[in-house]
Amino acid sequence: MIRLRPEHEATYRRLHADVWPDVLAQIARSNIRNYTIFLRDGILFSYYEYVGTDLDADLAAMATDPRTREWWALTDPCQQPVETAAEGEWWAPTEEVFHTD
Amino acid sequence: MIRLRPEHEATYRRLHADVWPDVLAQIARSNIRNYTIFLRDGILFSYYEYVGTDLDADLAAMATDPRTREWWALTDPCQQPVETAAEGEWWAPTEEVFHTD
Repeated sequence: MIRLRPEHEATYRRLHADVWPDVLAQIARSNIRNYTIFLRDGILFSYYEYVGTDLDADLAAMATDPRTREWWALTDPCQQPVETAAEGEWWAPTEEVFHTD
Repeated sequence: MIRLRPEHEATYRRLHADVWPDVLAQIARSNIRNYTIFLRDGILFSYYEYVGTDLDADLAAMATDPRTREWWALTDPCQQPVETAAEGEWWAPTEEVFHTD
């Protein structure tokens, strides 16, 4: 969960309506599938399914991908961590309280 | 998206840690799959995938299932629609701003 800065909502929407193929390719290389970002009331909620075996390594690979870093340089200013985020945390984790397949 | 009333959080967690089999069966009969409820900062986000052909009819079937209604009689008091919910709306819809498979 992360906040979307109201003054940058239009930019964020525009960027995500046409995400760079290189960014999508890195998401796939990092073994992330069925990735959706939802928005309501200025709160972004992202959902994805991880199909790899080393999430930390796959997220680190994403964080060092030059094109992904270029992308984040555009999207990060649109976002603001929630008030309860941990120090240094960007997207804040949510807790799963129920699941059924 | 819906709010979880802080004073009922423990009850809501307890209920969802052991959801009634009849409620799970109706979810499946209503063609809902991969259903997860996430919690952060007093906000519940639910995610599911609909695999049927008539969502309204399948949700109506759920809403008329006696055991599901019994379940909702326990869970509804734990929840509170978000301030921006439409009149009569319980869970408020979010908007998908990005998706990749």
